[in-house]
Amino acid sequence: MRLRKRPGVREEMATYPKLVPMNGPDHKGNWRAFFGNDNPIHIELGTGKGNFITTLAEQNPDINFFGVELHEEVLIQAVKKAEEKGLTNISFLWINVNDLEDYFASGEVNRIYLNFSDPWPKKRHAKRRLTDRSFLSKYKNVLNPDGYIQLKTDNETLFEYSLNEFAHEMFLLSGITLDLHKSEYAEGNVMTEYEAKFVERGMRIYRCLAAHPMQLMAIAHGKK
Amino acid sequence: MRLRKRPGVREEMATYPKLVPMNGPDHKGNWRAFFGNDNPIHIELGTGKGNFITTLAEQNPDINFFGVELHEEVLIQAVKKAEEKGLTNISFLWINVNDLEDYFASGEVNRIYLNFSDPWPKKRHAKRRLTDRSFLSKYKNVLNPDGYIQLKTDNETLFEYSLNEFAHEMFLLSGITLDLHKSEYAEGNVMTEYEAKFVERGMRIYRCLAAHPMQLMAIAHGKK
Ligand SMILES: C[S@@+](CC[C@H](N)C(=O)[O-])C[C@H]1O[C@@H](n2cnc3c(N)ncnc32)[C@H](O)[C@@H]1O
Ligand SMILES: C[S@@+](CC[C@H](N)C(=O)[O-])C[C@H]1O[C@@H](n2cnc3c(N)ncnc32)[C@H](O)[C@@H]1O
Repeated sequence: MRLRKRPGVREEMATYPKLVPMNGPDHKGNWRAFFGNDNPIHIELGTGKGNFITTLAEQNPDINFFGVELHEEVLIQAVKKAEEKGLTNISFLWINVNDLEDYFASGEVNRIYLNFSDPWPKKRHAKRRLTDRSFLSKYKNVLNPDGYIQLKTDNETLFEYSLNEFAHEMFLLSGITLDLHKSEYAEGNVMTEYEAKFVERGMRIYRCLAAHPMQLMAIAHGKK
Repeated sequence: MRLRKRPGVREEMATYPKLVPMNGPDHKGNWRAFFGNDNPIHIELGTGKGNFITTLAEQNPDINFFGVELHEEVLIQAVKKAEEKGLTNISFLWINVNDLEDYFASGEVNRIYLNFSDPWPKKRHAKRRLTDRSFLSKYKNVLNPDGYIQLKTDNETLFEYSLNEFAHEMFLLSGITLDLHKSEYAEGNVMTEYEAKFVERGMRIYRCLAAHPMQLMAIAHGKK
């Protein structure tokens, strides 16, 4: 096991049992019971310091949110934001996105946000990108057939790769913009920590939606 | 009727009856007979001065090509290129893309090229863009279910619009690149007149493929 930079973080995390449930897989398929309501579930993968997902949770009390994040050093900051805002409709999963299917049952998730995912610019690392088809097939599984993925990134190569992977996996694309902050989607856009930095530097943000492939199937079968 | 800039062009065009068939609709559904072979048909819409399509015709004697172009001033130059190259596997349709379905039967076309189509940058003119859904539904009709559209453009707004329109009309996207000349698709790429100018100025070229929606249907029905 690698040495942790801040050994206290793990213990600190444990002091927020509601915000950071440690027995996640036990709730698989039953998160609505965990939240005590029947609301839809929206999750952000690689949530970082959590400005995006905690802001959405504040704005949308009728939705249950999850921030999924591997690194405790940033996750703890997201957790504290939720605590300070007194949010009861959000939880955090301190896990690797790889294991998403251990935490959510098939169709349990209604929306997935991918914000400024690590670009892994080298071609030989492409498989690690969170929009690689190996990840998309996991998302397909946990995502409700009516659901969709929303992606934002500053990274052109990742964006290009993602569009091709989404299309290849039969996700139904829409809302594609090569310059979010000059587009019709700027209104109501909630910025992430990374996004705020990039926008400050005058960089453009790419964005798209990718609906669950079942929506294509439904259209193909004349049900939509 | 508006005054023609070069009244001689119309007469000049008539001197190339094989390269510019004047009774196009008569051949609808029978273009293979017109060419005297059973080869696939690839067409370029808005072919301009014709470097792209005449080069492809030269390189691919086993494919029948069409350049579709409204403006006689540029079309005559494309025709002369074909004449000089002694090509017998190409013809030109001096028509408006709007009327494409009067010239090709359902499924008669195996590939459509859209190169540097007029961008119509103003939103209120979006309907005139050759990738507007009203045009896509015509292409869907003339395009063979196994066929696809290849699009190249320097114009970001047109590219973004096109991706969204293709996806909306259930075309199956692939080969998306935001910088063609730095991509894997640069090799073997045949440049158009506009493209050569843009590349010289250091501008980037966007490119994608959009396969006929039937290919999605086939996948949805488990036939692919
Ligand atoms: C570039 S940061 C972006 C953070 C945040 N979304 C934002 O936009 O400000 C990417 C985040 O994804 C997390 N991450 C990367 N791969 C992950 C994985 N496989 N599982 C969970 N988190 C991951 C990283 O730890 C990091 O916090
Ligand atoms: C910007 S130019 C590009 C020419 C060529 N494809 C190139 O890349 O060099 C667009 C061409 O499309 C033709 N065009 C535009 N709308 C058309 C239509 N509705 N039907 C036929 N041709 C059209 C124009 O006359 C013009 O020659």
